[in-house]
Amino acid sequence: MNAVAVIGLGYWGPNLVRNLHQVAGPRLRVVCDRDPMRLQAIARQYPWLETTPRAEEVFARRDVSAVVIATPVSTHFPLARAAIQSGKSVLVEKPLTTSSAQAEELIELAYRRSVVLMVDHVFVFSPAVQKIRQLVAAGQLGPIRFVDSVRINLGLVQSDVNVLWDLAPHDLSIVDYVLDRFPESVAAYGKAHVLPGIEDVAYLTLDYGGGLVANFHLNWLSPVKIRYTIFGGSQRSIVYNDLDPVEKVKVYSSGLSVQQLGAEDRRRVLVDYRTGDVWAPHLEKVEPLRQVVEHFLHCVDSGETPVTDGLAALRVVRILEAAQQSLRRDGQRVELGVRFSSDSAVPENTPAARPPAEKLPQEA
Amino acid sequence: MNAVAVIGLGYWGPNLVRNLHQVAGPRLRVVCDRDPMRLQAIARQYPWLETTPRAEEVFARRDVSAVVIATPVSTHFPLARAAIQSGKSVLVEKPLTTSSAQAEELIELAYRRSVVLMVDHVFVFSPAVQKIRQLVAAGQLGPIRFVDSVRINLGLVQSDVNVLWDLAPHDLSIVDYVLDRFPESVAAYGKAHVLPGIEDVAYLTLDYGGGLVANFHLNWLSPVKIRYTIFGGSQRSIVYNDLDPVEKVKVYSSGLSVQQLGAEDRRRVLVDYRTGDVWAPHLEKVEPLRQVVEHFLHCVDSGETPVTDGLAALRVVRILEAAQQSLRRDGQRVELGVRFSSDSAVPENTPAARPPAEKLPQEA
Amino acid sequence: MNAVAVIGLGYWGPNLVRNLHQVAGPRLRVVCDRDPMRLQAIARQYPWLETTPRAEEVFARRDVSAVVIATPVSTHFPLARAAIQSGKSVLVEKPLTTSSAQAEELIELAYRRSVVLMVDHVFVFSPAVQKIRQLVAAGQLGPIRFVDSVRINLGLVQSDVNVLWDLAPHDLSIVDYVLDRFPESVAAYGKAHVLPGIEDVAYLTLDYGGGLVANFHLNWLSPVKIRYTIFGGSQRSIVYNDLDPVEKVKVYSSGLSVQQLGAEDRRRVLVDYRTGDVWAPHLEKVEPLRQVVEHFLHCVDSGETPVTDGLAALRVVRILEAAQQSLRRDGQRVELGVRFSSDSAVPENTPAARPPAEKLPQEA
Amino acid sequence: MNAVAVIGLGYWGPNLVRNLHQVAGPRLRVVCDRDPMRLQAIARQYPWLETTPRAEEVFARRDVSAVVIATPVSTHFPLARAAIQSGKSVLVEKPLTTSSAQAEELIELAYRRSVVLMVDHVFVFSPAVQKIRQLVAAGQLGPIRFVDSVRINLGLVQSDVNVLWDLAPHDLSIVDYVLDRFPESVAAYGKAHVLPGIEDVAYLTLDYGGGLVANFHLNWLSPVKIRYTIFGGSQRSIVYNDLDPVEKVKVYSSGLSVQQLGAEDRRRVLVDYRTGDVWAPHLEKVEPLRQVVEHFLHCVDSGETPVTDGLAALRVVRILEAAQQSLRRDGQRVELGVRFSSDSAVPENTPAARPPAEKLPQEA
Repeated sequence: MNAVAVIGLGYWGPNLVRNLHQVAGPRLRVVCDRDPMRLQAIARQYPWLETTPRAEEVFARRDVSAVVIATPVSTHFPLARAAIQSGKSVLVEKPLTTSSAQAEELIELAYRRSVVLMVDHVFVFSPAVQKIRQLVAAGQLGPIRFVDSVRINLGLVQSDVNVLWDLAPHDLSIVDYVLDRFPESVAAYGKAHVLPGIEDVAYLTLDYGGGLVANFHLNWLSPVKIRYTIFGGSQRSIVYNDLDPVEKVKVYSSGLSVQQLGAEDRRRVLVDYRTGDVWAPHLEKVEPLRQVVEHFLHCVDSGETPVTDGLAALRVVRILEAAQQSLRRDGQRVELGVRFSSDSAVPENTPAARPPAEKLPQEA
Repeated sequence: MNAVAVIGLGYWGPNLVRNLHQVAGPRLRVVCDRDPMRLQAIARQYPWLETTPRAEEVFARRDVSAVVIATPVSTHFPLARAAIQSGKSVLVEKPLTTSSAQAEELIELAYRRSVVLMVDHVFVFSPAVQKIRQLVAAGQLGPIRFVDSVRINLGLVQSDVNVLWDLAPHDLSIVDYVLDRFPESVAAYGKAHVLPGIEDVAYLTLDYGGGLVANFHLNWLSPVKIRYTIFGGSQRSIVYNDLDPVEKVKVYSSGLSVQQLGAEDRRRVLVDYRTGDVWAPHLEKVEPLRQVVEHFLHCVDSGETPVTDGLAALRVVRILEAAQQSLRRDGQRVELGVRFSSDSAVPENTPAARPPAEKLPQEA
Repeated sequence: MNAVAVIGLGYWGPNLVRNLHQVAGPRLRVVCDRDPMRLQAIARQYPWLETTPRAEEVFARRDVSAVVIATPVSTHFPLARAAIQSGKSVLVEKPLTTSSAQAEELIELAYRRSVVLMVDHVFVFSPAVQKIRQLVAAGQLGPIRFVDSVRINLGLVQSDVNVLWDLAPHDLSIVDYVLDRFPESVAAYGKAHVLPGIEDVAYLTLDYGGGLVANFHLNWLSPVKIRYTIFGGSQRSIVYNDLDPVEKVKVYSSGLSVQQLGAEDRRRVLVDYRTGDVWAPHLEKVEPLRQVVEHFLHCVDSGETPVTDGLAALRVVRILEAAQQSLRRDGQRVELGVRFSSDSAVPENTPAARPPAEKLPQEA
Repeated sequence: MNAVAVIGLGYWGPNLVRNLHQVAGPRLRVVCDRDPMRLQAIARQYPWLETTPRAEEVFARRDVSAVVIATPVSTHFPLARAAIQSGKSVLVEKPLTTSSAQAEELIELAYRRSVVLMVDHVFVFSPAVQKIRQLVAAGQLGPIRFVDSVRINLGLVQSDVNVLWDLAPHDLSIVDYVLDRFPESVAAYGKAHVLPGIEDVAYLTLDYGGGLVANFHLNWLSPVKIRYTIFGGSQRSIVYNDLDPVEKVKVYSSGLSVQQLGAEDRRRVLVDYRTGDVWAPHLEKVEPLRQVVEHFLHCVDSGETPVTDGLAALRVVRILEAAQQSLRRDGQRVELGVRFSSDSAVPENTPAARPPAEKLPQEA
């Protein structure tokens, strides 16, 4: 009755299976993929799992209450919709959908069916990003001035989405979680070299207003693997290097501040440079995907709203959608036109966040 | 009669003095700065040098045939113009001027007066960039797909130019020299946090056509110093890390290529990944600035056109000018509208490159 | 009849199980550990495996022809002996035994019973060490002058062996394989800080004669993880950094040579420094342990002698034994007194290498 | 009357001249070297300096009160002795002398003549080593268990001293300063490959008693430059990486401690691993050699005893001398047999530390 199924056993699916197996044991019961080779490969490793090439079979099962979807991006929406319509809670790979309209539909559907809709923004569950959010929330950095993110690699070129939709969800979900703000406008520029129409190199700039700008490099063609994000604050700054095995998060107290010495003489400003200590906080060694899976099952069982719920997914898809527009318009800046209520970081003109349980008498 | 003078003894000037002293010995005769403290400091180290706070004095001297200008950017043009008008050859700090009109005027003036006009694009003279140009020119990389450049640091915030005009000339002169191409369009985005109106964080994207895109991060506020440029080719790629004391240039044979298996099925493309050797060619250990100074004196004495001549300077200023426009228009892409003659990499609609000597009967 | 069993499911055993499962599938049939918790943990992951807390049961099974032993070091000998006596081929964790007498007994026993005796010198099977041996064998380095090895970490302090017996087998097996030489003498020095009598910091120096010296740092208490080996040759040198995810092996053409200018003047020698290119050959991405397991099964099936056979294990144990003597004698150098036949790198006074099959009529 | 002279303008001398010029200005008056080319080179840069090829001339000058000696090691003693006998204070390059007897003679002589005797243990004056000493003295590391030092490079092979006497003084002076303890015994092993009898690779192990062991790698033939020292404490550890431009000193709170659960069961010890934060304290950016020169002049003027006085130099020479013995005896451990008075870290059986001025009536 509370069994879990995984649909999609390509690149990421087997990792989800492995973690679900470790966390949920026999509760993981069914795996599904259209490719019989992949089913066989999983069956060799977990011979007790039931396998099927047809997702409908999964949705039809009464013992399955939660479905994890790790299929190609373009199939996320129909599969997630069908799963939710069958009353299943879903954990969907990033990005949740290929349009905000689809994301909104899933949010509304999940709300109506009272099931959990969670997106696998896996970095949000890493000890590094958790620590960064905590430091930022505590005001350690002072007002943040810029975010610089680079995620480049000789990567798996996708044929259904470009590098923006493939890699940027990671970084957009990280900044969404850390900054707790939504950008005002987006611009993106990119080029396709390998597959026509599929950008494999892209640059993305978000403007959050108030001087805060975030830039992202996304690249599938880089000979070297680089992954870092700099959060530049006026008091302190953080460099998050995901490839450093030990010091993933470093906090720098260096910085600069300025003293205006008088309006009459522009050039007599006094810039004060501080170079200070560097501190690398200890981080737990946990696999983020395991945290994702545990959190999903916890929400399924408790009815809690996931940290990376449909709205978090929608915010990321909104930005990607606008970035895609900008990409098609030669990099022209696109306004996001979404307001946040001050306390919740939730777009006001999106379907309301999940209301508390007592307000939902009509839902089973 | 062939003495050399240095005007401007702020941050960079003393380095020029040191190198000129080593290369030219007593030929370096005069130094000039409005700040008496700086003159004193230099005089303590090189007591035989003549000092003056007035540039006009330098220009009036008949024994001085070459002037090195390392003053704030906004003064480059009037000082260089006056120097050339006095018949002196000039080596000017980057960027040459604050507008292309000024750069064109200096080029024409230098042409008419038959003096050398050279800009200190110092990285062009580094063994690393020399090696990269050589590898690219030899076709080792195959067609280049992208250039990714990061130059960020807790830098000296300038009060007369923004981070784009301060730092980008380095990178723009490097790609100008290595690629031997001029971009078709430019977009830039940036923010000012420390001094109003002076951007201290900026992102710049050049489109060269044919899929080649170059992106630049410029940042004075970064807690960490990062300086790298990736030249991504279809055959090989180069990573130039200026901060690596030993392996500044690394050549990667890794890459990917694609095989289209048939138009009917988009998704049946076969991407072939090659991961190969990494090679770090040995580089001579020479101070680039010393090469600059030697090259300048060589051109002054021989009449040869410098590698980083007025036109090279103009190309960089053109891009900066357009980038500045884009910055003011919220990142809107600006067409550069300049054509190159195929053989010379010289903008056709700029004053012609210096003609061969025999065509210049009227010049003394 | 050709089933495989694993005895010992502590730190390393589960990795062996995972690789055997992948390589041998259902041929891996039995796992054994005295700790019921460990048996349960493995059974959860591989529910089809048979489990037993008693090694004797494994040895008694007729279907099991090969046993992998990953128990504490002090139990290697009795377990391996019992396994061989039951006619099983064995793969034993490093170090093979705690004395050379034991190692010799196992070699002789395995020879008599015509079973495979292999030691898990896992680094020998890494692409990095394979490549290094190949380069050294091809004479690329010229005569080797020194080997410098550091293997330090906040490691698992063992209570039955010291850091020398725990970590040095890795490095000794690497240099044994790469150099194909046996040292003439050994000295070791170390200190115990955590457990009395169990050295947790040790330094080991091997002298191979002819100027070749090899030094090893072994340390369980280091706050940082460092693992590198430098092979310093007169023509080229190799730095093997096992922690570099990409460039594990770097070949340096830099070096120095000397020209004697005349015996009369000692000080007029001319040392010639070459600084050259650095080259990082591409390495396959394979898990060394998987190669170990495949090689073991291949030898079991084909009767071939493993690369890391009993003699390779004996050579390492001989050095450890002498190092331990030196450790007890305050670092006094201990002669190894073992000669190699020139072609085989096999100690002459150890039981002969496994003779070709045709010479063994009496063996079944 | 208080002029300063520099004798020896080879590799290090020009650096001393540059720093003396900056710190002392015109007080630096004379430079001396037997090689006329070197004198000319300095004269070109500092034309006002007096030059002489004869050290005796320097000693004879009445205006010179302090002499800096940067000649080959074997000449340190005769030159320093002559200088002191002429009543000059001396700053001598490391190592002070080639024997402890010579060092003692200089100490006694300087004491009798009431002049300053200082050795250029330059790393002692680096902000990194200053910070480390401060942390160690404050007890931040707890009892120190081991020191691991590596100083290897493609270095300048010397023809009058081996790599031990050339490089180890740096590391020995660092640990002398940081630990404030003198070792009980020394062992060294090394090999000569380039010049006969001049070891170019050496390993040195000091035993301080109480479990504290220090190991040093010294190597002129390494293709890569590595310089680090690990101070492993029971509470915290420090890694000092002199080549890191920013984070030279890192403090690790990780470590391990042990709980004995009962004598009856050796194996039931509980080792407790702590992995904690990493902290890189901010360090001033000063050139250590400048600090050396300032401190020397300060001591010359004030009569204060230098931090790196003759006794500090003697302690280093004592260790080198014993290490050299061990080297000649095949690495046999050599007892140092020197006791320290508890408060002063001064060998009791060496000439007494400089007594307070009031006790020296007979001295001028």
